[in-house]
Amino acid sequence: MIKVTVWNEFVHEREMENVRAVYPDGIHNCIKDFLQSDEIEVRTATLDMPESGLTEEVIADTDVMIWWGHCAHDKVPDEIALRVKDAVLKGMGLIVLHSGHHSKPFKLLMGTSCDLQWREGDRERIWCTCPNHPIAQGIPESFELAAEEMYGEYFTIPKPDDVVFTGWFAGGEVFRSGCTFTRDLGRIFYFQPGHEEYPTFKNEYVRRIIKNAVYWAKPVTRKNKLGSPHAVDVPEARI
Amino acid sequence: MIKVTVWNEFVHEREMENVRAVYPDGIHNCIKDFLQSDEIEVRTATLDMPESGLTEEVIADTDVMIWWGHCAHDKVPDEIALRVKDAVLKGMGLIVLHSGHHSKPFKLLMGTSCDLQWREGDRERIWCTCPNHPIAQGIPESFELAAEEMYGEYFTIPKPDDVVFTGWFAGGEVFRSGCTFTRDLGRIFYFQPGHEEYPTFKNEYVRRIIKNAVYWAKPVTRKNKLGSPHAVDVPEARI
Amino acid sequence: MIKVTVWNEFVHEREMENVRAVYPDGIHNCIKDFLQSDEIEVRTATLDMPESGLTEEVIADTDVMIWWGHCAHDKVPDEIALRVKDAVLKGMGLIVLHSGHHSKPFKLLMGTSCDLQWREGDRERIWCTCPNHPIAQGIPESFELAAEEMYGEYFTIPKPDDVVFTGWFAGGEVFRSGCTFTRDLGRIFYFQPGHEEYPTFKNEYVRRIIKNAVYWAKPVTRKNKLGSPHAVDVPEARI
Amino acid sequence: MIKVTVWNEFVHEREMENVRAVYPDGIHNCIKDFLQSDEIEVRTATLDMPESGLTEEVIADTDVMIWWGHCAHDKVPDEIALRVKDAVLKGMGLIVLHSGHHSKPFKLLMGTSCDLQWREGDRERIWCTCPNHPIAQGIPESFELAAEEMYGEYFTIPKPDDVVFTGWFAGGEVFRSGCTFTRDLGRIFYFQPGHEEYPTFKNEYVRRIIKNAVYWAKPVTRKNKLGSPHAVDVPEARI
Repeated sequence: MIKVTVWNEFVHEREMENVRAVYPDGIHNCIKDFLQSDEIEVRTATLDMPESGLTEEVIADTDVMIWWGHCAHDKVPDEIALRVKDAVLKGMGLIVLHSGHHSKPFKLLMGTSCDLQWREGDRERIWCTCPNHPIAQGIPESFELAAEEMYGEYFTIPKPDDVVFTGWFAGGEVFRSGCTFTRDLGRIFYFQPGHEEYPTFKNEYVRRIIKNAVYWAKPVTRKNKLGSPHAVDVPEARI
Repeated sequence: MIKVTVWNEFVHEREMENVRAVYPDGIHNCIKDFLQSDEIEVRTATLDMPESGLTEEVIADTDVMIWWGHCAHDKVPDEIALRVKDAVLKGMGLIVLHSGHHSKPFKLLMGTSCDLQWREGDRERIWCTCPNHPIAQGIPESFELAAEEMYGEYFTIPKPDDVVFTGWFAGGEVFRSGCTFTRDLGRIFYFQPGHEEYPTFKNEYVRRIIKNAVYWAKPVTRKNKLGSPHAVDVPEARI
Repeated sequence: MIKVTVWNEFVHEREMENVRAVYPDGIHNCIKDFLQSDEIEVRTATLDMPESGLTEEVIADTDVMIWWGHCAHDKVPDEIALRVKDAVLKGMGLIVLHSGHHSKPFKLLMGTSCDLQWREGDRERIWCTCPNHPIAQGIPESFELAAEEMYGEYFTIPKPDDVVFTGWFAGGEVFRSGCTFTRDLGRIFYFQPGHEEYPTFKNEYVRRIIKNAVYWAKPVTRKNKLGSPHAVDVPEARI
Repeated sequence: MIKVTVWNEFVHEREMENVRAVYPDGIHNCIKDFLQSDEIEVRTATLDMPESGLTEEVIADTDVMIWWGHCAHDKVPDEIALRVKDAVLKGMGLIVLHSGHHSKPFKLLMGTSCDLQWREGDRERIWCTCPNHPIAQGIPESFELAAEEMYGEYFTIPKPDDVVFTGWFAGGEVFRSGCTFTRDLGRIFYFQPGHEEYPTFKNEYVRRIIKNAVYWAKPVTRKNKLGSPHAVDVPEARI
C-alpha cells in the first residue's frame, strides 16, 4: 500500500466561481478520486488546517506527497516547508504540479529561482521525450490539452535527471513539462499542466502520468542509512 | 580582468597554533597570493568584517567567489548567505572548498544535506575522471596529497554536471572530489581537498585546479536576461 | 517471467586449469544457477555454438542478455554483434560484465573506445554512489572483494546515466564500477567485477547486484513505437 | 588559429535547381564564407574528392570538422567514417548539421539509431534552453526561421550533455535542436536547422551558433594521453 498525501492550498476553488465550476470539491479531492485504489491510499491536506495539514504525524505516514499551490505560497510557514523538504531528503516522494514551481518546498529543494515565462490559456501538446521512463508508460508519443496556461522557457531549474515530457504551445513556446530530480533519498517529479481554470486533472493521460509518478516516487526499501555525517572506523587508516 | 573575492571564516588560523604554522596569514591570503595575476584581481573577506565582508558593493564587484569555512558556518548570517546564493543565480561563479560543503550558501544552492563521511588525515590520490574539462587542463591523470582529511561517499549532493576529479584514500574510501554544478546563470565548483592542518593550498596541482576553476566559473557575457517571470506578448496566441 | 540469456565466450574455463577450478561448469552456468528463480528463466549461450548461440530466435526470446567475454572478442562475428546491438535499441536489456567493456556489442552501443587501465589482482572495495537506484537495493554502503583485477580510470565511456558503484583498489586506483546507460529503448548496465580467476560471482552482493540489474533492465511494456523515422500527418502544418 | 574542415556531400546543389538557387557554390562554401576569420582557417571537402576529401593528412590537420550530408550517407566508405570517428575520440571537434543525424560518423559515435520524425517545411522557433552555454552566447531567448524542415521527437539519441536549443514548429512538434555530447576527448554538437532548400545558413543567429560551436569544440591543450589501455606500475599494489 502506497500512502499518498495530496496537499492543496484550496483558495481559488472557494473564491472564484469559474474555478469552483471545474473543481467543486477542490483540486485535491479530484486528484484523490482518480488516484485511490487497492494499492494507493490517499489523504488530503489543505492550508487552512492546523499546521497546514502537514503535522509530523502526517508526514511520517506519507510515502508520496502531491503539491498544488499558487496564490498562497507565502502563507505556508517556513517551518512546514522545511519539514516537507527534510522528509523528501529522507526518502518521501514529491510530485509538484503546475504553479507549485514557485512553492517553498520545491524552491528549497531546487536551490534556484524556478522562474519561467507565462501567459493565459493556450492549446498545448505534450510530447514524450523519454519513452523508456516508468512515468511515460501507457502515454502516447504526444497528446493534446485544448486549454492550459502557457509556461515557457527558460525555466530556471537545475538540470533534471530526465525530461520525460516537453510541452508545445500553439502561441509559439516550448517547455520542459515533465522533469525528474533526485535529492538525497527522495525522488521528485515536476509536471507543468494543471491550471485551476481548466479541467486538466480530468484528462485520462494526465491522470495516468500522475499515477505512474506515484509508483515511481515511492521510497525504495533500503538497508543503507543516510542523513548524518559520521566518522568511519577503518583499521587500515594511516598517514 | 576577473575579479575574485576569497572568503575565509579565518578562525582556525587564529586559534590553533598548528594551523597558523601552515597558513600564518590565513588560508585566504595564501589563495590570494597564488591566484593574483595580470588577469585576476583578488580581494579577501572574512567573517569578522562588517556584514562578514560581503556587502552588496563587494558582491556586485565580484565575478567569482571562493569560499572556505568550517567551524563557524552558523555564524554567517542567513541574510548574507542568501545574498551570496542570489548573486550566484544571477551569474557570479562560486568555488567551494573542502569543509565548505556544509556552508550555508552551498547548502542553499544544492537543496540537499551535503553530508559525507569523514575521518582524520590520510593519504589521498586524486584521479581525473573528466580529462576534457577546462578545470582539468594541465593536471596529470592522478596526483597525490601526502595528507588530507578523508571525505568519503555517500556524498548527499544532487547529481553533478561533471565529476572532474575522484579521490582515493589509503584507508579505503572514494569521493567525488571535484564536482561542477550550474544554478540559473551561475557556475559552481566544489573541490574536496583543503583541510586547514595540511599545506594543500601550496600544492602546485591544487593551485592550478583552483586557477582553472576561476576561469571556468567567471560569468559569460550575455544578451539574455533571466531572473524574473514575465508574460510573453505573442500575437499568435489563441485558445 | 523474465527471460535471460547468459552469453559466455567460454574459453578460459576450458583452457586454464586455475580458472576451471573456480568455475568448473563455466561462468555462464555459475550465473545461471544463482539467477534462476520462479520469476527469472535462464538460458545460456556460448561462442562455440552455431551463430555464437545467438540466433534470431534466441534474441527474440530474450528480455535481458548478460555478456561475459575477454580473449575472444574478435571471434564474435560482426553480424552477431550488430544483432545484439539492434536488439538492445529495440528494448532488450544488456548487462555487460568485467572484460566485456571491450566486447563488440558494448563498444558499438557506446560509440567510444571503452579503454581503461588495468593490472593483475588487487583488493577491491565497492562503494555505492547512488543508494536510491534499484540496482543498489540490499547492498551495503560498501563491500569488499579480497581479489579482483584492477580496472582504473580514466575509463573512456560516454557519461553514464548513473554511476551506481565506484570501485576502490588497494594499489591506489578508483573506477566507475557500476554504470547505467539508456540507448533508444534499451537499458544497459556495465559492472566491473568478474575476473575469471577469482570467485567473484560467488559473492552474495555481486549476485544481488546482477539480480537487481536483471529486474531493472527488463523491457517496459510500451504503447509507443520507435525505431523508424516517419513523416507526421499534421493538419495544422503550414509554411 | 582554429583549423576547420567543412565536409559536404555536395549532391543536391548540383542536381536540384531550387537548391542551387539558394546555395550556388554549395552549402560548404556558404559556411566557409561566414566562418573564415583571423582566428579560423577553413578548408572544404566533398564526397567526390579522392577518399571523400578526408585523407589522413586532412584529418590530422583539422581541429573541428563540420558535416553536412543527406541523400548520399551510404556513399561514404565505412573506412572514412571510422577515420572521422577515431579522430573525434582523439580530440577533434565535430559539428553535425541537420540531416547529418543519419550520417555514418554520427551514428557510429552515438551508438543509437538517431531516428526522428520529419515532414516538409514549416515555420520554426528556436528557444535557448541552456543560456549559460558558450554556444548560446549572443543568441536571444528565441529566434525564428520562416521555413525549415520539421524534425520532431522522439529523437533516438543518447541523453545529451546539454540541450542548448529546443525547436518549436508551427505544425505542432518540438525537437531537441541543439545537443552537445562528449566522446572520449572529442566534443560533438548536433544542430537541427539547415535543410538544403532554405537559406538557413544565411541567418545571422544560425551563423553565430555555428561559429560559437567551432570555438567550443576545438581540442583543449592537454598533458593527459588517452586512447590505449595500459597496465599501471604501482609500487603499493598488493593482494
